[in-house]
Amino acid sequence: MKKFLLFSLSLGAVALLPSCKMKTAETAVSGDAASKVYVAPGKYDEFYNFVSGGFNGQVSVYGLPSGRLLKIIPVFSVFPENGYGYSEETKAMLNTTAGLIPWDDQHHLTLSQTNGEQDGRWLFANANNTPRVARIDLTTFKTVEILQLPNSAGNHSSPYLTENTEYVVAGTRFAVPIGEQQDVPISSFKENFKSTVSFISVDKNSGRMNVAFQVVLPGMDLDLSRAGKGPSHGWFFFSTYNTEQANTLLEVNASEKDKDFIVAINWQKAEAYAKAGKGKKMKVQYAHNVFHEEEQSATSTTETEVIVLDPNELKDIVYMIPCPKSPHGCDVDPSGEYIVGSGKLAALIPVFSYQKIIKAIDAKDFEGDYQGIPVLKYNTVLHGEVQKPGLGPLHTEFDANGNAYTSMFLSSEIVKWNVKSLEVLDRAPTYYSIGHLCVPGGDTKKPWGKYVIAYNKITKDRYLPTGPELAQSAQLYDISGEKMKLLLDFPTVGEPHYAQAIAADMIKDKSVKIYDINKNKHPYVAMGEKNAKVVRKGNRVDIYMTAIRSHLNPDNIEGVYVGDEVYFHVTNLEQDWDVPHGFAIKNNPNAELLIMPGETVTLKFVPEKAGIYPYYCTDFCSALHQEMQGYLRVSPKGSNVPLKFGTGEMKAVAANQ
Amino acid sequence: MKKFLLFSLSLGAVALLPSCKMKTAETAVSGDAASKVYVAPGKYDEFYNFVSGGFNGQVSVYGLPSGRLLKIIPVFSVFPENGYGYSEETKAMLNTTAGLIPWDDQHHLTLSQTNGEQDGRWLFANANNTPRVARIDLTTFKTVEILQLPNSAGNHSSPYLTENTEYVVAGTRFAVPIGEQQDVPISSFKENFKSTVSFISVDKNSGRMNVAFQVVLPGMDLDLSRAGKGPSHGWFFFSTYNTEQANTLLEVNASEKDKDFIVAINWQKAEAYAKAGKGKKMKVQYAHNVFHEEEQSATSTTETEVIVLDPNELKDIVYMIPCPKSPHGCDVDPSGEYIVGSGKLAALIPVFSYQKIIKAIDAKDFEGDYQGIPVLKYNTVLHGEVQKPGLGPLHTEFDANGNAYTSMFLSSEIVKWNVKSLEVLDRAPTYYSIGHLCVPGGDTKKPWGKYVIAYNKITKDRYLPTGPELAQSAQLYDISGEKMKLLLDFPTVGEPHYAQAIAADMIKDKSVKIYDINKNKHPYVAMGEKNAKVVRKGNRVDIYMTAIRSHLNPDNIEGVYVGDEVYFHVTNLEQDWDVPHGFAIKNNPNAELLIMPGETVTLKFVPEKAGIYPYYCTDFCSALHQEMQGYLRVSPKGSNVPLKFGTGEMKAVAANQ
Repeated sequence: MKKFLLFSLSLGAVALLPSCKMKTAETAVSGDAASKVYVAPGKYDEFYNFVSGGFNGQVSVYGLPSGRLLKIIPVFSVFPENGYGYSEETKAMLNTTAGLIPWDDQHHLTLSQTNGEQDGRWLFANANNTPRVARIDLTTFKTVEILQLPNSAGNHSSPYLTENTEYVVAGTRFAVPIGEQQDVPISSFKENFKSTVSFISVDKNSGRMNVAFQVVLPGMDLDLSRAGKGPSHGWFFFSTYNTEQANTLLEVNASEKDKDFIVAINWQKAEAYAKAGKGKKMKVQYAHNVFHEEEQSATSTTETEVIVLDPNELKDIVYMIPCPKSPHGCDVDPSGEYIVGSGKLAALIPVFSYQKIIKAIDAKDFEGDYQGIPVLKYNTVLHGEVQKPGLGPLHTEFDANGNAYTSMFLSSEIVKWNVKSLEVLDRAPTYYSIGHLCVPGGDTKKPWGKYVIAYNKITKDRYLPTGPELAQSAQLYDISGEKMKLLLDFPTVGEPHYAQAIAADMIKDKSVKIYDINKNKHPYVAMGEKNAKVVRKGNRVDIYMTAIRSHLNPDNIEGVYVGDEVYFHVTNLEQDWDVPHGFAIKNNPNAELLIMPGETVTLKFVPEKAGIYPYYCTDFCSALHQEMQGYLRVSPKGSNVPLKFGTGEMKAVAANQ
Repeated sequence: MKKFLLFSLSLGAVALLPSCKMKTAETAVSGDAASKVYVAPGKYDEFYNFVSGGFNGQVSVYGLPSGRLLKIIPVFSVFPENGYGYSEETKAMLNTTAGLIPWDDQHHLTLSQTNGEQDGRWLFANANNTPRVARIDLTTFKTVEILQLPNSAGNHSSPYLTENTEYVVAGTRFAVPIGEQQDVPISSFKENFKSTVSFISVDKNSGRMNVAFQVVLPGMDLDLSRAGKGPSHGWFFFSTYNTEQANTLLEVNASEKDKDFIVAINWQKAEAYAKAGKGKKMKVQYAHNVFHEEEQSATSTTETEVIVLDPNELKDIVYMIPCPKSPHGCDVDPSGEYIVGSGKLAALIPVFSYQKIIKAIDAKDFEGDYQGIPVLKYNTVLHGEVQKPGLGPLHTEFDANGNAYTSMFLSSEIVKWNVKSLEVLDRAPTYYSIGHLCVPGGDTKKPWGKYVIAYNKITKDRYLPTGPELAQSAQLYDISGEKMKLLLDFPTVGEPHYAQAIAADMIKDKSVKIYDINKNKHPYVAMGEKNAKVVRKGNRVDIYMTAIRSHLNPDNIEGVYVGDEVYFHVTNLEQDWDVPHGFAIKNNPNAELLIMPGETVTLKFVPEKAGIYPYYCTDFCSALHQEMQGYLRVSPKGSNVPLKFGTGEMKAVAANQ
């Protein structure tokens, strides 16, 4: 216990020391920074910056260089603001084998690629806590698919992409028992706990995801990953920690070994084995949730099988590359030749050579094995080491000119170095304790470059204080010259865990403005006001409601009883850009709806008390928005109030249709 | 029906026309705007801008002049990001007589005042849908109290403050039946539906709220309000629409009369009547939720009585002032003499004189009555009219130099005019369709001035597109000179319905940085790691857990069964600024926790399946944050796995304590 306390104390102190020191110095800012980040009213930003929400479970979209928050896209957490997770159409998106889970931890995201370049079609995002991968459609900025992952826990090393979006890949952070026997002693970690990597195929046209196969590894913590590209296309590289296989006090026990590993997986070979039936079919259960754009509704189905490949049987699909010390980031340069492993407790950055790796594998030049998996020799596959880069290297992205940018958590800085020469070219302080960083396109074959953005873990005194809970923070640097220039601090929502950026032109003209009402295939659409109606079947009441400036139709409803299941299906009849309507009703233990032009969305309400319940449009839509309101009368169960509805005049409805 | 269609068509067209026209023109921006809004890294903004979240139900805090989002304060909607509404400590905050409601519509807010000036102590915020008022503590930026309102629906005209924060006042937007008989025909509106104004007393020291009394009015839509100040202290002024008392198609039927009313209430007289026992005690039920800072937990109690005052019996507490046409904003200038009524369908702005109102009341110079309430004569109490101000006047705020700034929804502009001379001095276009506006301190006796901020209803083409659902938008103007100068567009979260701003110095030095662990009175606190423990009582398991860089204690737990009620009480032992820890566990149909230094927060988990459930710190806290993880083993009900826990080594616990 003594060792542990001392260790934790010293690390804790180191972790915060740099930031405390920096507080006293003035922040050095580029002289023309103001004009470089100012986007005048009416002008557009140059890049979309998609930023992981971290512990808010969503994805946020910022404009660069202004740092303005353009949108929060609801993904893994409920979003009462627009009814995501509350409307009948979206509840199924958050379904899992453990039911509807209202929150997750969104750590990494990746923009779809064609030929190793960003194509602006989809954005994939991981859920870290209850392992899932989501796909967002970049024409609507809507989450359209969520796939749960079996045999996994802590889906941290996820999602990462092959260069034509053939596969989204997702690795386990927390090893867990897989198979039938789940109730095992925690102390049987080495024997019973396994780590898996899931290869999720992506349909070229629809984007639909499917767990094609999994590779099972010894119990360890897979941390981060990148696919090979160009010459190394066909391979995946994962960082690991806790190859010590500790199951308690990892802070000490998973930091003992001098080297952990980069895990190299030959996925094209694995894919061939899976297709040839070499894998084991395992019974599992996981949810697959799809938002169907035509019906404007999500469905959730349960998948029941997965193909698992074991590298102890299939000897040529996985290799281990020793990497100092608890590697975190694992990044591949634009050429595809260099693999950067960032040991967060290491004082150097090793860069591995893909050619040397292949040569060593071909020559079977191994130093031994790790639980049956061949281990390559560090020096044989090393391109070289970046010396004295700083303290606590975490992540690396690249520009188009052969330079790498590595975040340094402990020394709170970004270090620029040349990928081939490994020479350190520049360093810029960050405020404070940078985690991930992002260069637009910086993980692809063709980086856009121009900026690097730091996503920091500690905010402290950078903004006006807001009590004990502070926003986290990003910093924008100009990298168009030889030296990095700090331009802007901008606070972020949630935890800006990782981010990618893409040139605005790749997305903006494809952005959908309205839904075509004529294509609305929602089963409860009211096509025009004349089709607004109220239908009762047993204790279910379906209200086909329309919204158009500035009234809801019907706006008076009677003949609903306590305990009825009332469904408000609200169709927004507008066909103009940016004319949403909203809908809410008093005392409903549910959220609201925001309904975009041409869309139908449904809110459920089960009234518990008799009385008058006002409902109204919640999204200010015209000068007479305040008048856009109505009343639902709820009568005691068993009373004899006929079903009636209308706008202007109420019509009676034949009872019990 | 024909009339209605034509009317709605023409109004709809008018509502959007100005913005379409403006699209073609270049936005005129002040030449030195970039440098005026740029807040360099490491520097602070000048003002806190508290902005209503509208349909997101929260309050957001921006810095001015940068327009940067500093924080979202969870108020009326669940916030899975930090566990608000999910943790055991906060669930009670969202309780109502209809149970836990996860969402509301947050329209207006007001900073507490002393002597008519902002004092930086509290922020009050309304819930529009299920009528409630919240109080936020500005030392912690936490919601510490939520009070439900009886006899109310659509709490829109709320919350408004008297000049020493004696009362928070809240008026009904949707008239509803009050009293025992709630199940009445909607068509009996004129007979059965009433509107109420609630006077909520505020304790000078603790801030604790209490519904002191209500004034009951004929059924109509109370819209917005301000208290008198200085000479008019003791009075409240409310705008109304639908004094036609329509209950359907309000877009047409509530716009028929040439004049609605400003309702003037003599609250000091009403208070005296209430204290003298002149009101009627009515049986009602409403929730009162308080966050107790010592125990760090909220409780919800149900109040059962309210005092109601009827102006038909107490003849000298309410007067009606005719005001053209569907008045929306109702604002009182810093001197307290001038009351501005903004008829949203009117082509002029009437300004009333407090002195003339009092004189007319004293002289009983009435033109008649409205359902028994005396109606003053428009021309007798009028100071004058602002002629041709623009189209669709909505709201007015003031600077310290005798000028008023009125938002014009239909003509999309801000109009500056002199309060005394009523002369229009300047106009500036807004993009598009401005709703509320805000001058820092602009509703108080002592405005800070310097800026006016427009909160716009339509965004359209102002930013990079993000699919059909767009952010709403604010615009910052410099008002330090004679002419308004547009400086910045900044997008906002939710609907930036209304906002107030206060000089940073009034708040920043009082901001709490950590909670003192020695003052932690949480019933399940673990004071130091040695007090971490697991206690079983029947099927309830309480885990007293600690979090400190970089481990959770215990990090291994066994002997928990399927169906147990497991409570993770996590105490953050850190005492440094900005070192929160987070907590989540796999497959839990619940959210996560964020735990600030010195705080204890509780997450409930009822496991449904046997297996190994990893848990971890969700807030990146140190270089070894990734190692801050643990395992809970859940065994089948009835199996014999002894209760054990530990970090490093598991200790057995005597069963069934």
